[in-house]
Amino acid sequence: MSFDEATAVEQVGDTRFAARVHDGWSIAGNANGGYLLAIAARAMRDASGRPDPVSVTAHYLRPGRPGPATVDVEPVKTGKAFSVVRATLSSAEEPLLSLLGTFGTLADSEASAPMLVDARPPDLPPVEDCVRMPATADFPPPFMAKVDLRLHPDDAAFMLGERSGLARMRGWFAFPDGEGAGTHVDTIGLLQAADAFPPTIFNTELPVAWTPTVELTAHVRAVPTQGPLRCAFTTHFVTGGFLEADGEIWDGTGRLVGQSRQLALVPRT
Amino acid sequence: MSFDEATAVEQVGDTRFAARVHDGWSIAGNANGGYLLAIAARAMRDASGRPDPVSVTAHYLRPGRPGPATVDVEPVKTGKAFSVVRATLSSAEEPLLSLLGTFGTLADSEASAPMLVDARPPDLPPVEDCVRMPATADFPPPFMAKVDLRLHPDDAAFMLGERSGLARMRGWFAFPDGEGAGTHVDTIGLLQAADAFPPTIFNTELPVAWTPTVELTAHVRAVPTQGPLRCAFTTHFVTGGFLEADGEIWDGTGRLVGQSRQLALVPRT
Repeated sequence: MSFDEATAVEQVGDTRFAARVHDGWSIAGNANGGYLLAIAARAMRDASGRPDPVSVTAHYLRPGRPGPATVDVEPVKTGKAFSVVRATLSSAEEPLLSLLGTFGTLADSEASAPMLVDARPPDLPPVEDCVRMPATADFPPPFMAKVDLRLHPDDAAFMLGERSGLARMRGWFAFPDGEGAGTHVDTIGLLQAADAFPPTIFNTELPVAWTPTVELTAHVRAVPTQGPLRCAFTTHFVTGGFLEADGEIWDGTGRLVGQSRQLALVPRT
Repeated sequence: MSFDEATAVEQVGDTRFAARVHDGWSIAGNANGGYLLAIAARAMRDASGRPDPVSVTAHYLRPGRPGPATVDVEPVKTGKAFSVVRATLSSAEEPLLSLLGTFGTLADSEASAPMLVDARPPDLPPVEDCVRMPATADFPPPFMAKVDLRLHPDDAAFMLGERSGLARMRGWFAFPDGEGAGTHVDTIGLLQAADAFPPTIFNTELPVAWTPTVELTAHVRAVPTQGPLRCAFTTHFVTGGFLEADGEIWDGTGRLVGQSRQLALVPRT
């Protein structure tokens, strides 16, 4: 089942969409946060009448598990260039995510000449020299079969029980197509990329455990025109029980296509 | 009138708060975005039953002008440690901001020993060697009398019609008390600090003009225990008509107390 199929939504009422949290997109039994974000954003996008998420924020209320889901949407404003929508993604029992987003029409990365760029895409070895995250029943999680992550070898140290000491995770992102990283990623897929990599702190002395997301905001800056995506996630501050993870996502043309920041809870030891 | 008075809210119904957008907090006739955020967050905080904003996102629907305002709040979840609230800030005529936030109880910056910090507060000259933003009827705007901003001299070049060439703005933030920068800033005041400085692009070749905020997310990481705050705002990407501005806010103890990111529109020439 493709990402598009696994995140499909069907409008079943004026402001309600039906969806399904599918098996296999889970980590330790809980659906991946980027996957849930993508389902909700797809419904919000449909409700907005605009093709692309520009800025979407999700607050994570409860973990999600496989099963039927609904997305209730509420248009906030329909403007000349942008539409603002709020939404709630719920399981059959209870709300899982509360969301707020602005939608619009983004240019292809190749068509949007940057006016100012003072950062560079992460320096990654070729896809074939990076470390494919395997999928297992437990750890690494089954979710890793749904995305095609290739980690920078330096950042894959945790998979060998080692620690690079740097709170970052860099690598290539694509959807698997049976032929290696390369499948096209659209602006909904980009939201999945914003929360697909292992936590940055897996390479620090902090516990390797679930870091529950409190809130994630993703900005989509352009429509990716080539894959796979070059991604880098970095944590600068682990303080007061919280950590942030900042993401930069670049496409195959070398253009920035998205930024993300999530606030998460430090795992308890 | 103090910041607390200018952002005061009064509960007037189960889910409604009355407020006022006061004169003098404007830039080119439009109320400052951080000021509107602070009004709304104060009502959301009161509705949450928790003392501090942890993560608050505002999408800016329309410019605000002085006059009566209301904040309609809707509790989304009340959990063991956090409460999630959504809200709408409206003028007498129409909605201005749509918001979503998580509230909780944050530690004082001095009480929260960081577990990992790999960034440093901006290197600022002493307050008295920085450049005070003056307030005028036009530009610099009257809003600058309401906050006490002291810009790093290198970043104040635009005030002399020059450009540093770097899309950043660094300086001290406090509320004026008649005795220089130093008045205590609480976690609602910190939201004002997240959107009080001149746009980063004033020091680039882009037009010096209003950069309308699409969305702003602020994370409060600790309660500031000493002022003034050391702030740094940086833009790395101006692409496709959008720019982001990333803020880091540190208190007088040298601890990070907040991070912000806003997505704004590039001014039209």
